[in-house]
Amino acid sequence: MRVLGVDPGLTRCGVGVVEGLPGRACRLVHYEVVTSDPDTDLAYRLLNLDERLTALLAEHRPESVAVERVFSQHNVRTVMGTAQAGAVAILAAARAGLPVQMYTPSEVKAAVSGNGQADKAQVTAMVTRLLRLEVAPRPADAADALALAICHVWRGGTRDRIAAAVRRAR
Amino acid sequence: MRVLGVDPGLTRCGVGVVEGLPGRACRLVHYEVVTSDPDTDLAYRLLNLDERLTALLAEHRPESVAVERVFSQHNVRTVMGTAQAGAVAILAAARAGLPVQMYTPSEVKAAVSGNGQADKAQVTAMVTRLLRLEVAPRPADAADALALAICHVWRGGTRDRIAAAVRRAR
Repeated sequence: MRVLGVDPGLTRCGVGVVEGLPGRACRLVHYEVVTSDPDTDLAYRLLNLDERLTALLAEHRPESVAVERVFSQHNVRTVMGTAQAGAVAILAAARAGLPVQMYTPSEVKAAVSGNGQADKAQVTAMVTRLLRLEVAPRPADAADALALAICHVWRGGTRDRIAAAVRRAR
Repeated sequence: MRVLGVDPGLTRCGVGVVEGLPGRACRLVHYEVVTSDPDTDLAYRLLNLDERLTALLAEHRPESVAVERVFSQHNVRTVMGTAQAGAVAILAAARAGLPVQMYTPSEVKAAVSGNGQADKAQVTAMVTRLLRLEVAPRPADAADALALAICHVWRGGTRDRIAAAVRRAR
């Protein structure tokens, strides 16, 4: 099962692709951070993100996409950029016909480290260990996206099958 | 000059198309509200909105798109849905190669009624009068989208030319 995870952000959007099976070790396929300049036009930034994500979906052909659920406790300006980038990611996946699952940061942290309150350094360390990497994935946005993808491999199989069934029923 | 205005919302997204010139009367081309069921999957809702907006852009061929700028004083849950729908609208326009301009609610109200604090009933009444309609456009989301489009016809000409120049320079 191949999953593409997205840690949405307008200025820095983490993307990570892993392959694996529930309960088994995952293999790293790809990671990167899609960046955009805060001084450029919003339309241009969203288009750039959409084009890059669409290209990554075509290149890596994941079976499903996991996106971090935007959280309301952040400040509103950050939330808006994150919500916009998240919408672009969800839409890119939907346009590619892929099921999308959202996870909260604590679900992801709990899945990869056993602790829903783990900090960024702990998540990065666990991702590095779980994917058996020699070097930790940097920056943290990329590690978060990989953690999302691992979380979905381990938790998402059943959900995907349900989502696919609902999709067919429509 | 033909403009498509979008009053973004996930459950109800107003769309209005008008044609006109700065300082002259505008003509109504089309309006509608794209709705989606809050109980359905977010990916499906965003995809549905994207497909309808993309179809409307192809059908009505506006020269530019005006989108209401999401405001931070609303409650965060509403802001997130509005930000997501707004991102879909901005992206649909950008993918169609069209310039996008954002306006705050007060800019739109001031443009159509001379009063940045006008209420929904006043905006609807002014849109009805300005477009010389016999029946007021309903619901308010549609009237707001038409007000955005009128605002852009009257204010946007110069901005569009600047945006087009910047686009060419890239």
